[in-house]
Amino acid sequence: MSKAEFPIARPALNAPALGEPYLLTPGPLTTSLATKQAMLSDWGSWDADFNRITAEIRQGLLAMAGVHDDSYACVPLQGSGTFAVEAALATAIARDGKALVLMNGAYGKRATQILDYLGRDYIALDKGDYLPPQPEEVAELLAANPDVTDVFLVHCETSSGILNPLREIADVVKAHGKGLIVDAMSSFGAVPLTVDEIPFDVMVSSANKCIEGIPGFGFVIIRRTLLEQSKGRAHSLSLDLLEQWQYMERTGQWRFTPPTHSVVAFRKALEQHVAEGGVTGRQMRYTNNRNVLVSGMRDLGFQTLLEDRWLSPIITTFFSPAHPNFEFKRFYDELKARQFLIYPGKLTTAESFRIGCIGQIDERIVAQLLRAIADALAVMGVDTCQPAA
Amino acid sequence: MSKAEFPIARPALNAPALGEPYLLTPGPLTTSLATKQAMLSDWGSWDADFNRITAEIRQGLLAMAGVHDDSYACVPLQGSGTFAVEAALATAIARDGKALVLMNGAYGKRATQILDYLGRDYIALDKGDYLPPQPEEVAELLAANPDVTDVFLVHCETSSGILNPLREIADVVKAHGKGLIVDAMSSFGAVPLTVDEIPFDVMVSSANKCIEGIPGFGFVIIRRTLLEQSKGRAHSLSLDLLEQWQYMERTGQWRFTPPTHSVVAFRKALEQHVAEGGVTGRQMRYTNNRNVLVSGMRDLGFQTLLEDRWLSPIITTFFSPAHPNFEFKRFYDELKARQFLIYPGKLTTAESFRIGCIGQIDERIVAQLLRAIADALAVMGVDTCQPAA
Repeated sequence: MSKAEFPIARPALNAPALGEPYLLTPGPLTTSLATKQAMLSDWGSWDADFNRITAEIRQGLLAMAGVHDDSYACVPLQGSGTFAVEAALATAIARDGKALVLMNGAYGKRATQILDYLGRDYIALDKGDYLPPQPEEVAELLAANPDVTDVFLVHCETSSGILNPLREIADVVKAHGKGLIVDAMSSFGAVPLTVDEIPFDVMVSSANKCIEGIPGFGFVIIRRTLLEQSKGRAHSLSLDLLEQWQYMERTGQWRFTPPTHSVVAFRKALEQHVAEGGVTGRQMRYTNNRNVLVSGMRDLGFQTLLEDRWLSPIITTFFSPAHPNFEFKRFYDELKARQFLIYPGKLTTAESFRIGCIGQIDERIVAQLLRAIADALAVMGVDTCQPAA
Repeated sequence: MSKAEFPIARPALNAPALGEPYLLTPGPLTTSLATKQAMLSDWGSWDADFNRITAEIRQGLLAMAGVHDDSYACVPLQGSGTFAVEAALATAIARDGKALVLMNGAYGKRATQILDYLGRDYIALDKGDYLPPQPEEVAELLAANPDVTDVFLVHCETSSGILNPLREIADVVKAHGKGLIVDAMSSFGAVPLTVDEIPFDVMVSSANKCIEGIPGFGFVIIRRTLLEQSKGRAHSLSLDLLEQWQYMERTGQWRFTPPTHSVVAFRKALEQHVAEGGVTGRQMRYTNNRNVLVSGMRDLGFQTLLEDRWLSPIITTFFSPAHPNFEFKRFYDELKARQFLIYPGKLTTAESFRIGCIGQIDERIVAQLLRAIADALAVMGVDTCQPAA
């Protein structure tokens, strides 16, 4: 893999505070100092100044999704990204609807758990730990199950790091006239996802992923007609997306206390996202991070779980070395002592770990990480990184 | 009203940033600089260092509630306080249970809305805008409705600012052998509420109230046996309090992405709460704020909605002057221009506004506020503050 060929003007990244580790994880992630410093003021959650920030954020997110008219609404919701996914599923799928859930990791599986709570009918295509759902499989399932009303897909499944074939699947879903719900939690902001290219009905993401904000809320971008016809579907007052939207449209305020500091930090993060060249700029930096990481790790003898064509610029899964001296806990601690936090693996069948490429890091930090990994292996006495056969 | 008679060593309060207003509101509120500065680092949400902070917070909250054994659990939950109330109601009330909701404002009413979503049966005692529910009324209702299983009461109903007679009502509820669910959102941390004095089963509060943290999560303190027997009651994956607790007990981590920065700020806020003398010290400062405020406002000719014995140290409702030149929006803007944000009223029958006494303010700030109010009235040409008859 080669580095990005079109270098752009890169804003300087801030080093973390003294002694603070880099978070090489799928979020929460390392944010810029400017984003965190935006939290040094308190805001009245119903005051016009704060309402203006909320409006700016909603507008900025719609623009990022390529929405330039009233056809979609952006509804932020307090809580983690899962709260927003749950609210979106309850809103988008009619009480007598039926979902097709495409699963190849923890977040597809979580959608089925949510549907169990909601009492919504569904079928699932379970591809196991990491295999991508194929458009032809989706077409067959939709043909065989005409009562399916909506298809749910995780864009980047961070369980393995795969970037699922969203565009091809979206075409199939639309050709069958079904609703498309995209969990773009870990991709939105760093992988192009606009309504002109991907005709989604619902897209969900959160503050602390590729836009590099602070955790505290998620957001749903949803076709406005779908939202308007969802009355009576919600199972929860707190997670009632239609009520949240109507209240916000009417008053400019959040329906219940917003995470004020996280919201203000997010506006600052959005400014930096624009300054970096928007989705294109961020995708370039993350892709470069990923390329430098994968190339360096292969030089050390590690193997990636996925073939190159499925690797996302978000997070990469590596097989653990089979060497008897390798133990993940020790490896984690050695890297933490060198100020890097990595992420455990989530495969059911093979020992693995994950390293994220998102947040305020660039290739220089990745190079430092690779040096730290080499050092950690040396002190552990791991001289070969071949995985178990 | 007199000032607090036992002055204690008061930690110095930080002025807000230049030009930033004081939030004289029921939260989000003005927090200390130290609390906000705690958000200047990023944290891995599954790292041992962060887990330790979560554990410290849960322990500190249990101690504040007078819990010194395993009889109660503290479960934090992402989202606003309402999310925690909804999770608590779904957990505490059996699917075939029946609640008695004591209502005298927006938050009692909101509990009934939640119960509608949950499909739980309930009856309500609606005392209107501000009258306190009386213990005798509760006793009569419980005698007449033996199928009621749980009673819900808002401790401080910020709609009016009333501090409801929790202790007397708790005694009645317990004498009838019913469950007691207390919404102590706006009181916990500044009004004594310990299990030895108030035998509650469930108590709910949130980060950005009297403990003076940053919004992002609420928390539930719940009798452990009740929590353990709640399996199958939750209506929502995100709001499933039992799952949240079991996961946290097992792993030390939050089940879904926590509002990391809000959590770390909360630990800092708890340290300052202890340094101020805990609930006693905070109650004294807030009560003093309230006394100086009410006394000064009465000197200006304003009238409080409530008699002195019902005034909380949290927020106070004042009737708007009947003077033709008084208009709330103008009054609000004049005070905002003088760096004070006050809160609109919520009475259905009379024009009013509210002023909070909580957050990083003391009597010196209240004195400045009173001067700003006098100035605002002068520029508005309001020379008498008598309310409409």
